[in-house]
Amino acid sequence: MMIIPFHYRRWEAKYEYKFLDCYKKLAITINGETPGPTIIAQQGDTIVVDLKNSLLTENVAIHWHGIRQIGTPWSDGTEGLTQCPSLPGEIHTYKFVVDRAGTFLYHAHYGMQRSAGLYGSIHVSVPNGVTEPFSYDYDKNIILNDWYHQSTYEQATGLSSIPFVWVGEPQSLLIQGRGRYNCSVLSTSSIEAGLCNTTNPDCSPYSMTVVSGKTYRLRISSLTSLSALNFEIEGHNMTVVEADGHYVQPLIIKNLNIYSGETYSVLVKADQDPSRNYWAAVNVIGRQPQTPTGLGIFNYYPNHPLKSPTTTPPTGPLWNDSDYRFAQSLAIKARQGYIDPPPQNSDRVITLLNTQNRIDGYTKWAVNNVSFVFPNTPYLIALKENLTDTFDQSSPPENYDSANYDIYSIAKNPNATYSNGIYRLEFNSTVDIVLQNANTMNANNSETHPWHLHGHDFWVLGYGKGKFDSVNDPKKYNLINPIKKNTVPLHTFGWTALRFQANNPGVWAFHCHIESHFYMGMGVVFEEGVERVGKLPTSIMGCGETKS
Amino acid sequence: MMIIPFHYRRWEAKYEYKFLDCYKKLAITINGETPGPTIIAQQGDTIVVDLKNSLLTENVAIHWHGIRQIGTPWSDGTEGLTQCPSLPGEIHTYKFVVDRAGTFLYHAHYGMQRSAGLYGSIHVSVPNGVTEPFSYDYDKNIILNDWYHQSTYEQATGLSSIPFVWVGEPQSLLIQGRGRYNCSVLSTSSIEAGLCNTTNPDCSPYSMTVVSGKTYRLRISSLTSLSALNFEIEGHNMTVVEADGHYVQPLIIKNLNIYSGETYSVLVKADQDPSRNYWAAVNVIGRQPQTPTGLGIFNYYPNHPLKSPTTTPPTGPLWNDSDYRFAQSLAIKARQGYIDPPPQNSDRVITLLNTQNRIDGYTKWAVNNVSFVFPNTPYLIALKENLTDTFDQSSPPENYDSANYDIYSIAKNPNATYSNGIYRLEFNSTVDIVLQNANTMNANNSETHPWHLHGHDFWVLGYGKGKFDSVNDPKKYNLINPIKKNTVPLHTFGWTALRFQANNPGVWAFHCHIESHFYMGMGVVFEEGVERVGKLPTSIMGCGETKS
Repeated sequence: MMIIPFHYRRWEAKYEYKFLDCYKKLAITINGETPGPTIIAQQGDTIVVDLKNSLLTENVAIHWHGIRQIGTPWSDGTEGLTQCPSLPGEIHTYKFVVDRAGTFLYHAHYGMQRSAGLYGSIHVSVPNGVTEPFSYDYDKNIILNDWYHQSTYEQATGLSSIPFVWVGEPQSLLIQGRGRYNCSVLSTSSIEAGLCNTTNPDCSPYSMTVVSGKTYRLRISSLTSLSALNFEIEGHNMTVVEADGHYVQPLIIKNLNIYSGETYSVLVKADQDPSRNYWAAVNVIGRQPQTPTGLGIFNYYPNHPLKSPTTTPPTGPLWNDSDYRFAQSLAIKARQGYIDPPPQNSDRVITLLNTQNRIDGYTKWAVNNVSFVFPNTPYLIALKENLTDTFDQSSPPENYDSANYDIYSIAKNPNATYSNGIYRLEFNSTVDIVLQNANTMNANNSETHPWHLHGHDFWVLGYGKGKFDSVNDPKKYNLINPIKKNTVPLHTFGWTALRFQANNPGVWAFHCHIESHFYMGMGVVFEEGVERVGKLPTSIMGCGETKS
Repeated sequence: MMIIPFHYRRWEAKYEYKFLDCYKKLAITINGETPGPTIIAQQGDTIVVDLKNSLLTENVAIHWHGIRQIGTPWSDGTEGLTQCPSLPGEIHTYKFVVDRAGTFLYHAHYGMQRSAGLYGSIHVSVPNGVTEPFSYDYDKNIILNDWYHQSTYEQATGLSSIPFVWVGEPQSLLIQGRGRYNCSVLSTSSIEAGLCNTTNPDCSPYSMTVVSGKTYRLRISSLTSLSALNFEIEGHNMTVVEADGHYVQPLIIKNLNIYSGETYSVLVKADQDPSRNYWAAVNVIGRQPQTPTGLGIFNYYPNHPLKSPTTTPPTGPLWNDSDYRFAQSLAIKARQGYIDPPPQNSDRVITLLNTQNRIDGYTKWAVNNVSFVFPNTPYLIALKENLTDTFDQSSPPENYDSANYDIYSIAKNPNATYSNGIYRLEFNSTVDIVLQNANTMNANNSETHPWHLHGHDFWVLGYGKGKFDSVNDPKKYNLINPIKKNTVPLHTFGWTALRFQANNPGVWAFHCHIESHFYMGMGVVFEEGVERVGKLPTSIMGCGETKS
């Protein structure tokens, strides 16, 4: 492979009508596509993307999910944290180095634009001369997603209303941007008007052609707005070998649980009867499914790529089997020989209680009873330029009243508030985060939250059920071979403990990757070493106190 | 009346579900309303509006239509000309003096946001001690509009596509924000899902209660996206007394033609049989109507305000009677005793051929074969700060090849181009504009274009049919009692001649007020005396070259 150290891309984001699940809907595309173009690069390469905003009256920002942005925190693409949004008509330049091999993502990080279709894959290969600890013949990207027929504006208006209006479960599940809605439930006049068209090529099923005997690396990721998913290929085992850009001790499974923001590489050998095709199937887990199985075709050459198997499509594991999901999370460990051991101790522990709340009659999500709101001036600029009046200078709580809080009861949280305060971390310190789940505002209900950290990978030290025991649970932390990740599930009524080193100068979001949850306040912000950040480009300015 | 020299308003723009014509659709509201709150002020008052943008990812700007913004060109609210757009979360302050009595409007002036419902009335009364040349008992605002069920994003995506996708005629006509769609054409499941609800109070018909024998001043305006309208009150005459804030020689009519951006005051005496109600009716003219008559109720007290008349609603004049429309335009003159005579000569004549064009496969509108596009840095800032690289410094054409152009043939215009160049006018010079209509890209078709000038009123010197004769037609100009206006129709296959004084330092749009036409390039920009403009507020900055 030739080394291409510099990748230049010109992208245009705009609205286009798409029939991703056969139903006509405006999507935000990049260069006409959703998912957008895949960035294929090699470790150490520099990526430059000139993003033209051709949305009508709407701004945009793109986050490079899993890329740490070392030395380029202004390119993280998180609107309100690391940049002002990019305005219609403007071209915004993102420039950064992909410093680790693995499977990463990009997506809009502004309002709920991700759910309008603005996303894609980043695939970073190892440097020349380096071999990976497993082999395969071919490599494929598969992004999983859920898809709503309501626009992000319609969804967000409901979320921001009193009474709260919930969009509900998605209409379809997409495999690499392709799904299938049952058009026949619509009225004849809607179908005649072209609102749903099962023959539109946009919704031709995703088909992956394989040759018998060959091994395939599937880079599977999820960018769902809401759903936790289970992925399987009918009749085939998968060996998990990578997660969020880190090698995994090989784990053979039939079903992969994947949460929004996660990426996994699995190896699949085409070792079954090659005279037929097999289903690739995606099912909702963790919430009672009201969305049909998402189906693609695992196509053995030379069968026709679109020939449906005659077998019944897999329906996945029981949606409410939380022990099963918990066990798969626990089973994923760093690969022997590739372990990056964590520091044995941390300098600071921040415990984050995850609750659903009501504030002034509005339904919100919060951590430690604080629902996050954005300031008008991005933190990175405010901190670097000492604009201390642009956000609340007091730190949000380090903990909650764990002795007196019943995580199994309906959350009342009468003292919930809004804040745009942030956690300021000592540079190069080691920080533990304990995510604590709880009951929502509905009886006997707790939701899975996939938490994503910008600018860092963290070690996953442990998962537990029930309330975290701050004395005994840390003694059971896995300090031997914990996987490093950037996104991790917090299971229902459980806890997840993470450790990371605050060694990347900048301002970084840590938030639930469910689009509506972050929109409703489920996130926090960390700052570290901002004084070490280089000169900020003026291209990230123009909002709040940065007009001139 | 007490003098209130300073009016302070806090407004919040956001999306809300409305049932304006009984069909559920997201609308942009101000403080929960569309039309937004009416500004009621007295001549000479200062208006201050703090506009909070609570749209999700979308910017906003509000234009104060008919207000000349003398000394405050940065408050004109024209995105791309006089300000950067106001970003989500921000509060933008508009401050200006209403220096003339009359009926004015405000509305979004960014993308196609006006058609999402962001608009309202400004009603400026005469100073204390001044009497108007007519009397009435009560005063009412009535804004007419057309209403689409497609979002502005859906409409604009079609307009920007190859092939061009036209949204078609509006679904409803609204009287003061209220219309009625025939829900029964929808599927049962749509109605059961609450998509259309004839009992929603949003679409209760507009009803104006009158007392027999009293005289009412109706301040009627149009902010249609597309439609030219005809307004009438069944069985009642109307006397036109004001147009765009200028007194009109009283003109008694039964039917008022009104074009998007125009305002008229008419006096109506409640002089008919008071034992029943009467229809107020709005019909489409100038285009073959596919939209039902918009109906309100002219309610004689004490009949029930919502009791429908048993008579057949008026269907208006023949939609294609262009002679009738032309004649009503000609009949409107300045009122004796209130004539502001125009300069007898002009310093410069700019002739603007109005055509539909195709550029690079896209369907556009253009003047003199130039389709207007916005620069990223607003002209007002660029000119004041000498940022000469932000837009094309060459002036657009002063004329077209009139000798060789057949206005009755399908426009081919192979040399059509895009430009963001502007007309720079000598300060205090007198400028004539001759608007020349032509055939569109469809055979035997010419469309009516209501042209609106920011920052000025112009004298309407004449209207003509066919091609303007630059030798003989100016001799027939009305230099005696021409009406002054800010919006004037250019009739099908005709011409309209205007004169104005370039005496207001700033940068001013002059454009077709049809929302899609300006979006597709049908506008020009005038600059005059920009060196006399005071210090620009930083609040209008933040886009293009104005970030820091």
